[in-house]
Amino acid sequence: MTVSRADQSLPTVAVLIIGNEILSGQVADVNLSHIAQKIENQGIQVKEARVVLDHEEEIALAVNELRQKYDYVISTGGIGPTHDDITAAAVAQAFQVSMEEHPDAVTCFVGDEEIALTPAQERMSMMPHGAEIVMNPETRAPGFRIENVFVLAGFPHIMRGMLESVCQQIGTAAPIFAQECLYRGSEGAIAGRLEELQATFPQVQIGSYPFYTDGAYGAKIVFKGRDESAVHKTKESFLKG
Amino acid sequence: MTVSRADQSLPTVAVLIIGNEILSGQVADVNLSHIAQKIENQGIQVKEARVVLDHEEEIALAVNELRQKYDYVISTGGIGPTHDDITAAAVAQAFQVSMEEHPDAVTCFVGDEEIALTPAQERMSMMPHGAEIVMNPETRAPGFRIENVFVLAGFPHIMRGMLESVCQQIGTAAPIFAQECLYRGSEGAIAGRLEELQATFPQVQIGSYPFYTDGAYGAKIVFKGRDESAVHKTKESFLKG
Repeated sequence: MTVSRADQSLPTVAVLIIGNEILSGQVADVNLSHIAQKIENQGIQVKEARVVLDHEEEIALAVNELRQKYDYVISTGGIGPTHDDITAAAVAQAFQVSMEEHPDAVTCFVGDEEIALTPAQERMSMMPHGAEIVMNPETRAPGFRIENVFVLAGFPHIMRGMLESVCQQIGTAAPIFAQECLYRGSEGAIAGRLEELQATFPQVQIGSYPFYTDGAYGAKIVFKGRDESAVHKTKESFLKG
Repeated sequence: MTVSRADQSLPTVAVLIIGNEILSGQVADVNLSHIAQKIENQGIQVKEARVVLDHEEEIALAVNELRQKYDYVISTGGIGPTHDDITAAAVAQAFQVSMEEHPDAVTCFVGDEEIALTPAQERMSMMPHGAEIVMNPETRAPGFRIENVFVLAGFPHIMRGMLESVCQQIGTAAPIFAQECLYRGSEGAIAGRLEELQATFPQVQIGSYPFYTDGAYGAKIVFKGRDESAVHKTKESFLKG
């Protein structure tokens, strides 16, 4: 599968969140914002995220669409020991490869010792053919990588441990600089000014994020870009009014 | 555009979250879990969610994919007064219709009075041809509906006000019953039991959601389905061990 990338120096990332509990509102996802921040700290932006059910065909479809469109896909969820953990099988289906016991995963659980795996460990050692494990510094059960797809746990604490290794593998790009300021009042009152500013500084991404606090509306104005002085200049222009 | 639905009695919903701030981790989305809970309380499940950037073509692409695949699409974000609020234009592009000032939106802002709109109000009154407004009980600026796509604000408090009207329009389906219990210990230890239980009660969806609290692992086991007695029976079987 060929990866198309608009700019070879700026890799793109998509996040795939897997789990019925997220789409039923039973559990609120906290992984996307953490992954996005970590990745952006390395100069790389998350371009899209999807949330899908624990449904093999739907997961496989999303994996295939995202891995063709973006340089990297980071998935979370569905690699635990229970019957509803079907992500590994779905990824194998997406890549049209078989599932097999991964020797490195077995080593994560029992080391060099000749001990039988528990049924739960056996299940979590099954990975798509061709996968490499992603270490889990928290509970041993590893994630895995196959081509440009990283498959991580959904449990936030464990996901974060695994993400360290993913960040190393994805590497860094030219840093993204961000500055922000708070505006007190209705966004509408500064919309014209922001529009003009955006036209003057097209290389800086200007975002306006309204909030409501202490009985009044305001907006966080964020200036972002790879040219630090342009980011600074844009913010200063805004502050000068 | 024809809508394909597997089961006519059970409408499907997708959520489309629009905003650079969500994909950069600057703002954590809280709308998905709220929408999912509200919709599920009406017996309808959210089948997929996507998060896309403030990018006209990407928004239009996601709108078109989701509105063909699901009965309803609920989008949040990008309908405010600033330059980065481009959702309405992107939805018009998706439907290949023009943008025009919506008289009902104008009425939301100025009532029956002959007052000129502010530039911000003018911008927020522009909607795709054929749209109907969705009332905003909080700040007047309305959302809109076009065919099976509802376009709501991203600001959580305002989104929730608009969602009330969306829920009425989507209607209800046979209720979904959910029961849950907490298991103290590692999920792996009950994985086999859950798998057997799932095979015995295929009409009940059994989910296992691990957590870590007070220094110990546990799992919330959730039993869900439209047959209340089957849900109850499955949970009782689990508790009996």
